[in-house]
Amino acid sequence: MASGLATAHHNACSSAGDGHLSLRRMRIDTYHENVAYMHRDCEVYRTEGFKALSKVEVRTNGRSIMATLNVVDNGEFLTCNELGLSNAAFEQLGVPAGQLVTISQADPPQSIQALHRKLAGERLEMRDFQGIISDIAAHRYSKIEMTAFVVATHRDELDREEVYYLTQAMIEAGRRLDWKEHVVVDKHCIGGIPGNRTSMLVVPIVAAYGMVFPKTSSRAITSPSGTADTMEVLAKVELSFEQMTRIVREHHGCLTWGGTAQLSPADDVLISVERPLSLDSPAQMVASILSKKVSAGSTHLVLDIPIGPTAKVRSMPEAQRLRRLFEYVAGRLKLSLDIVITDGRQPIGNGIGPLLEARDVMRVLENDPTAPMDLRQKSLRLAGRLIEFSPDVRGGDGYAIARDILDSGRALAKMKDIIRAQGAHPFDPNQLSLGALTIDVIADRAGVVCGIDNLQLAHIARFAGAPKVPSAGVNLFKKLGDEVQAGDVLYRVHANYPSDLQFARQACDKANGYTLGQASDVPHAFVEF
Amino acid sequence: MASGLATAHHNACSSAGDGHLSLRRMRIDTYHENVAYMHRDCEVYRTEGFKALSKVEVRTNGRSIMATLNVVDNGEFLTCNELGLSNAAFEQLGVPAGQLVTISQADPPQSIQALHRKLAGERLEMRDFQGIISDIAAHRYSKIEMTAFVVATHRDELDREEVYYLTQAMIEAGRRLDWKEHVVVDKHCIGGIPGNRTSMLVVPIVAAYGMVFPKTSSRAITSPSGTADTMEVLAKVELSFEQMTRIVREHHGCLTWGGTAQLSPADDVLISVERPLSLDSPAQMVASILSKKVSAGSTHLVLDIPIGPTAKVRSMPEAQRLRRLFEYVAGRLKLSLDIVITDGRQPIGNGIGPLLEARDVMRVLENDPTAPMDLRQKSLRLAGRLIEFSPDVRGGDGYAIARDILDSGRALAKMKDIIRAQGAHPFDPNQLSLGALTIDVIADRAGVVCGIDNLQLAHIARFAGAPKVPSAGVNLFKKLGDEVQAGDVLYRVHANYPSDLQFARQACDKANGYTLGQASDVPHAFVEF
Repeated sequence: MASGLATAHHNACSSAGDGHLSLRRMRIDTYHENVAYMHRDCEVYRTEGFKALSKVEVRTNGRSIMATLNVVDNGEFLTCNELGLSNAAFEQLGVPAGQLVTISQADPPQSIQALHRKLAGERLEMRDFQGIISDIAAHRYSKIEMTAFVVATHRDELDREEVYYLTQAMIEAGRRLDWKEHVVVDKHCIGGIPGNRTSMLVVPIVAAYGMVFPKTSSRAITSPSGTADTMEVLAKVELSFEQMTRIVREHHGCLTWGGTAQLSPADDVLISVERPLSLDSPAQMVASILSKKVSAGSTHLVLDIPIGPTAKVRSMPEAQRLRRLFEYVAGRLKLSLDIVITDGRQPIGNGIGPLLEARDVMRVLENDPTAPMDLRQKSLRLAGRLIEFSPDVRGGDGYAIARDILDSGRALAKMKDIIRAQGAHPFDPNQLSLGALTIDVIADRAGVVCGIDNLQLAHIARFAGAPKVPSAGVNLFKKLGDEVQAGDVLYRVHANYPSDLQFARQACDKANGYTLGQASDVPHAFVEF
Repeated sequence: MASGLATAHHNACSSAGDGHLSLRRMRIDTYHENVAYMHRDCEVYRTEGFKALSKVEVRTNGRSIMATLNVVDNGEFLTCNELGLSNAAFEQLGVPAGQLVTISQADPPQSIQALHRKLAGERLEMRDFQGIISDIAAHRYSKIEMTAFVVATHRDELDREEVYYLTQAMIEAGRRLDWKEHVVVDKHCIGGIPGNRTSMLVVPIVAAYGMVFPKTSSRAITSPSGTADTMEVLAKVELSFEQMTRIVREHHGCLTWGGTAQLSPADDVLISVERPLSLDSPAQMVASILSKKVSAGSTHLVLDIPIGPTAKVRSMPEAQRLRRLFEYVAGRLKLSLDIVITDGRQPIGNGIGPLLEARDVMRVLENDPTAPMDLRQKSLRLAGRLIEFSPDVRGGDGYAIARDILDSGRALAKMKDIIRAQGAHPFDPNQLSLGALTIDVIADRAGVVCGIDNLQLAHIARFAGAPKVPSAGVNLFKKLGDEVQAGDVLYRVHANYPSDLQFARQACDKANGYTLGQASDVPHAFVEF
């Protein structure tokens, strides 16, 4: 059969020649990278002198995309009159299979000259960043070119005005929401602390107070759960922009996934090279976070920078440098910004993983006596700072207002409204179906918990299956300063699959993430809260 | 039919489960990048939590390779019991199709920690470079990671001792030839000058003098012809190492392609990211060139650094900085190095493109009165410097010895021996079948040629089809300092295909690469030759 097919294709080939190829969806998932597939015997391939990994431009009816070329020697995949596209590329081109397309060597994106100037150590202007970022947002950069940009701008390569240019260019490259409100609030944490689901408490508190709070969150990238993953335990989070707008109009707040909004699209593209390199420089962090917030229409932002020995930011001088950069760029963007530097010495809350974190959140909202106090306190303080953005609230009064809203049950009622509006999922915090395979990690001696490694606990929860398996994760029984006896359970790992459990066990055996010592060994946190 | 196939594959799926997959050659050419293809319904895919673009390790019988994962939704390409590999990956794994393989998430290469330290601006040690380079040579780095390494080490990021570490690590990552001779000579040009086929004259002259000169060359990457492309007009250049050794033993010299020798393999991998970025920093140039030469067993090297307004190196201070870096690293490697800074203001010889360059070379060897004098002079001077590596030759006497060898016909006889030994191709310099489609580029006024743009002439020759079409290229009729009248032909472009001719014409129309002015406008070259 194979050879029969090959012959048929060969006959088909000889009749081609006008340079047009028939579009084919290859149904190959290459993630964010556009790949075009062409048969080696394709006449266009031979005459145009393409090579594998050439960058090509695919055009039809005034639409065009850039892609990397892969060359196919197999007539069963593709005839020589066809041009195949990977999933992402096919969707971007946005025309039906079978349509005729043309293909040509892609000119290098115009902004490559500016990239070369940055590689040579020069300072770039606003228009340079606009060119680079609009080319990146339009998928005109290869992974190699994007990596070069990210590395060439990562450490102290950008001055603070260049960081502003980069941020502004990222905003301009996407759509920008306008809520037609004077004050649209948001909060954001720079990340790195497991648990820490404050947004799911701050949104209902502040929305119950009456401020407009259209919160969109990301899913986990390298962490055991993102706010969108945990919220998804309780409600649908993938909503259309129109659905989200309607919910915010009615309830003042929402807790949805922000992935589809085309806000700062260059950021989503760049992350495909930043993530594998674990690059997260101050300049890129500032540009990424502030471009997303301004694009989403926020006017007032509280930003949480946790510091601790295993947090992203490890010293106060580092936190202060980062704060000044955020404040400078926010000022240029006319975004009101209040930065709080918080205690990042350990996870916030008891649970790590979607289901466990959702339980922590609901227990705080329900004023359950078993609710984690650290999560409650931090959320109240963050909510208080947001409430103080109101012109009629005195500095210092926000916390008490937030506490009244939480203690009175109004925050819980607001959360239930939001869950219902987004589409509730069944959930009972007292009847949790956690992963049935468990490991109890035990104290090997008596002492005081004087260190919990955020990174290691996050790794263990991910090995256990979080966030892909929502019922997997880590349940902490002891926190910093707690006294333990030999044999006490420090934490329990939950998994659903034996292989996940085994990976998690290997990670625990290597380093369980807890340090036991004396009360005086607990590191101090010189922060506001 | 398609749905029948899909069903069959679906049935096949349910019987899997031991984690083994059957290897399939996808026959997709992804150039240097290893790609593995897996069906989305594959049980291993689902249980292991892979994602598109995950780095995976494919193992069988103690062999293993790293690859980037693409996810296939199309049962016609791949069943869910199969693992597909791109051409390069399949060859690297080196086992037959159908063999059972296992696949797992790839651990990050061990040396990634060192990469992160360099990204953070730290100085690396020898062992760090050894780790990085051996991982790169083993294809354990993704394109993103390699780009990060190349950009993080490109400008002044490496001090000269680090450049030595990098070079030494690149040597250790491959095989190293040992010719069992006290003196093994080589020459190299850093490139950028069209024509300039001095190696094809220097090798027969110096080999005729009796020195061991196992010259391997590259094919063109971005230029209109490499020495291997031009030599291939005259003889076979893709020889096994054993064939090459035999020829060098018998004739003292050879002129072969160096691509298959596994000398400094990391260099071949890194070029796949350096080339698309046009990155060619001093550190990378020194490490690349010297690692190849030392791996090839050279003990004595003459290195040609041309300078000129459109050469790679554009000023004498820049050339001197580069010279000092080459000399420092060569010293650490115990390689005897003689650097000559030469006239790079214009192409060397009259022809650009394989056939035209081969004619220039043969005319010089045949002492033909129409031979290009600049090519003859430069080759004699380079050969003279190599001959002066002999302990019994006085400094300054090399040129005259080289000239005697050329004028007496001994160089031509040696070249004929080498051509015959490698496998002669039919060639008559006076009966050239040049590309029949031509463009004559004409002087639009009288004047003196005071500028020839190396880069533009190279582009035009490539657009015309060189080196893929050996008979394509550019034939220069006028060189720097020549007087021309309006209507004189400056150069002739040769192409074989109408589309190539059209691209070349567009390039000529945009900029023909020649500047006409007065005799006093010709730039001076303050170089040895």
